[in-house]
Amino acid sequence: MVERSVPRVAIVGAGFGGLWVAKALAGKPVEVTLIDKNNYHTFFPLLYQVAAAEVDPGDIAHPVRNILRGMKNVRFNLAEIQAVDYDAQLLEAGDLKIPYDYLVLATGSTSAYFGVPGAQEFAFSLRTMQEAISLRNHILCRFETASFEQDPEVRRRMLTFAIVGGGPTGVEFAGALEELIRGPLAKDFPGLDLSEVSVLLLEGTDHLLLNLPERLSAFTLRRLQKMGVEVRLGAMVAEVLPDAVRMKAGEVIPTETIVWTAGVKGNAVDGWGLPVNRAQQIEVMDTLQVAGRPNVYVIGDLAAAQYDGKLLPMLAPVATQQAEAAAENILRQVQGSEPQPFEYTDLGTMAVIGRNAAVANLFGRWSFTGFVAWAMWLGVHLFRLIGFRNRLVVLTNWAWDYLFFERVVRLILP
Amino acid sequence: MVERSVPRVAIVGAGFGGLWVAKALAGKPVEVTLIDKNNYHTFFPLLYQVAAAEVDPGDIAHPVRNILRGMKNVRFNLAEIQAVDYDAQLLEAGDLKIPYDYLVLATGSTSAYFGVPGAQEFAFSLRTMQEAISLRNHILCRFETASFEQDPEVRRRMLTFAIVGGGPTGVEFAGALEELIRGPLAKDFPGLDLSEVSVLLLEGTDHLLLNLPERLSAFTLRRLQKMGVEVRLGAMVAEVLPDAVRMKAGEVIPTETIVWTAGVKGNAVDGWGLPVNRAQQIEVMDTLQVAGRPNVYVIGDLAAAQYDGKLLPMLAPVATQQAEAAAENILRQVQGSEPQPFEYTDLGTMAVIGRNAAVANLFGRWSFTGFVAWAMWLGVHLFRLIGFRNRLVVLTNWAWDYLFFERVVRLILP
Repeated sequence: MVERSVPRVAIVGAGFGGLWVAKALAGKPVEVTLIDKNNYHTFFPLLYQVAAAEVDPGDIAHPVRNILRGMKNVRFNLAEIQAVDYDAQLLEAGDLKIPYDYLVLATGSTSAYFGVPGAQEFAFSLRTMQEAISLRNHILCRFETASFEQDPEVRRRMLTFAIVGGGPTGVEFAGALEELIRGPLAKDFPGLDLSEVSVLLLEGTDHLLLNLPERLSAFTLRRLQKMGVEVRLGAMVAEVLPDAVRMKAGEVIPTETIVWTAGVKGNAVDGWGLPVNRAQQIEVMDTLQVAGRPNVYVIGDLAAAQYDGKLLPMLAPVATQQAEAAAENILRQVQGSEPQPFEYTDLGTMAVIGRNAAVANLFGRWSFTGFVAWAMWLGVHLFRLIGFRNRLVVLTNWAWDYLFFERVVRLILP
Repeated sequence: MVERSVPRVAIVGAGFGGLWVAKALAGKPVEVTLIDKNNYHTFFPLLYQVAAAEVDPGDIAHPVRNILRGMKNVRFNLAEIQAVDYDAQLLEAGDLKIPYDYLVLATGSTSAYFGVPGAQEFAFSLRTMQEAISLRNHILCRFETASFEQDPEVRRRMLTFAIVGGGPTGVEFAGALEELIRGPLAKDFPGLDLSEVSVLLLEGTDHLLLNLPERLSAFTLRRLQKMGVEVRLGAMVAEVLPDAVRMKAGEVIPTETIVWTAGVKGNAVDGWGLPVNRAQQIEVMDTLQVAGRPNVYVIGDLAAAQYDGKLLPMLAPVATQQAEAAAENILRQVQGSEPQPFEYTDLGTMAVIGRNAAVANLFGRWSFTGFVAWAMWLGVHLFRLIGFRNRLVVLTNWAWDYLFFERVVRLILP
């Protein structure tokens, strides 16, 4: 056997974690293979806008090979990993075996249903591009069908949209959906009686946006209510049925559209055979390595990483910061030195509540609401979108939307 | 029974035929229902560009309800018509029955396979948005799979793309595919050996673009060859297999991608119960009415309409001109006067052969080739695209492509 002079790094997942590891290792003395089951990177923070027919899927997805161009030591492999053989140092995807010397697991998160009956089966999820497209098609079809439905009760059920979970995704989607309906759809369906349409936001606790300061939560609640969203706090879902949602308090709400944003968990086949926490996140040390497997790193939503004694939230900035730390630690190991603990900088969080209003909390310290927060949100998200053309197209779509209150991508496409 | 004062016109199909009838009847003393199985109008002339990953589906599809806005006497119905009851004057779509006083059938055309075994089963078609998206995904996946294939013979089969039919769609798609491969894909797959990739254009006669003058056909052949397309004239397909195409001359060409553009026929369930010609087009009188059914019109690709003793070709300008004629004839009938024969104006035909080259024949008289024809093609098609924003986006994509030789939409999306 020939000894390899260049260590091989395999990265599973081309989200904000995996892709940023690849970028950080570009041009370095390692051979990198990035693996994903899609050939594109999804800009997750704007995924809800696809579901609300606000942007085209192509606007927030970018081909991975395009991003990797010019990185001569990085190759891409379109494959779905089924298992990891840690002893043989092999990734397995059917017949395909991918060897590695260092491994970065960055397969993100998926919806968690906490055992609520029917939720996984009947509720829509908003975690992948395919799910966002399915949800968009489903919503537009409800309006098409309702426009020819004679029974007002059935029509009301078709036009009731229940969003479970008052976190950022639930809040942002509720706002965007309300605007889609009151704006373009109201124009598209002149016979539509808007009083028959309801957007419900069901939150189990007594707060929206739990991780943000009380003032921002209160602003968000008022703003959503003003837009027409029916927000219910302390509303726990007991069961999801094909045409209704049953609340713990006993009420049954007839609806054909239940969007589940209430929970997330690590996205891994059997936790990739590693120890996980209750949220199916893989336990890591402060260096982001798995205990006892010094050549295996876990980052992003998939990692149960502690910082200052607290579990880090599932946010893009956490993933990108961890990506850079993991890349540096691998390079340290290649050079024979010790991995260093990950240092997290809290940049803050923001959520948009529709046209020209948002809430933002910067560095865990300064809070902003309304148009100022919205402008910050726009700037940050445009800046983070990959590719100049994508930024241009998304900005154009938003500007068009803003000026003409018009969504341009209401296509029911497969 | 109450006598209806406003006659009801039902239009089946929202392509260039049906949509233009609706436009022509907007504001007139009729109640119009436009029915289509998709909620969008597809700009068919650019469909091949979706398959070649050159434009996004959303760029060339436009929501029908958006187009119909402001037309107060026109409503849209998303439904798939299964049958027509001419005596009861009802369209049937499952439980839904749509009554009419006047009917316009404009369901267009679909691929014809002339009984070639395996063609319908294994060949890709390029007639609908869904087919274009499937073909794009399939082509991109061939390159992904080939990049990890060790066997050069298998790799060559994966990278051979056979296009059957040298008409406008075959020519335009061959050119666009060759450019996609030599440009962006060559950059995306740095390990790719371009000598292993073939784009074959198989034409059964000894001419490309049969309806155009010989000079344009010869120009097209030279240009495609120069681009790298392997054009075979007099090449008749005997059978399509899952992983090869067998020619009448005996040769078997291993390929996983056969694109069938060789034939079209009328697209109707059992010819909508009306007399059809060999190409499954419905026979119509010179007024575009069906003989014996004075309140039924057939237009566009679906109509076997004669003019000057010749069958009119399946082209968008034929459909839009017929649409206006049919609308006028219906209004004449409503007012108690006689329908008039359809008068056709031949505007000419054009085909684009890739970046900055095309052939055009105007008014059946003047021929143009190269950049001049391409600029004309661009102008005509941009002008005909519906919606200012769509024109803007498509123009931006083309300009980007032109300047950077880059396709921006290489996503493998469902």
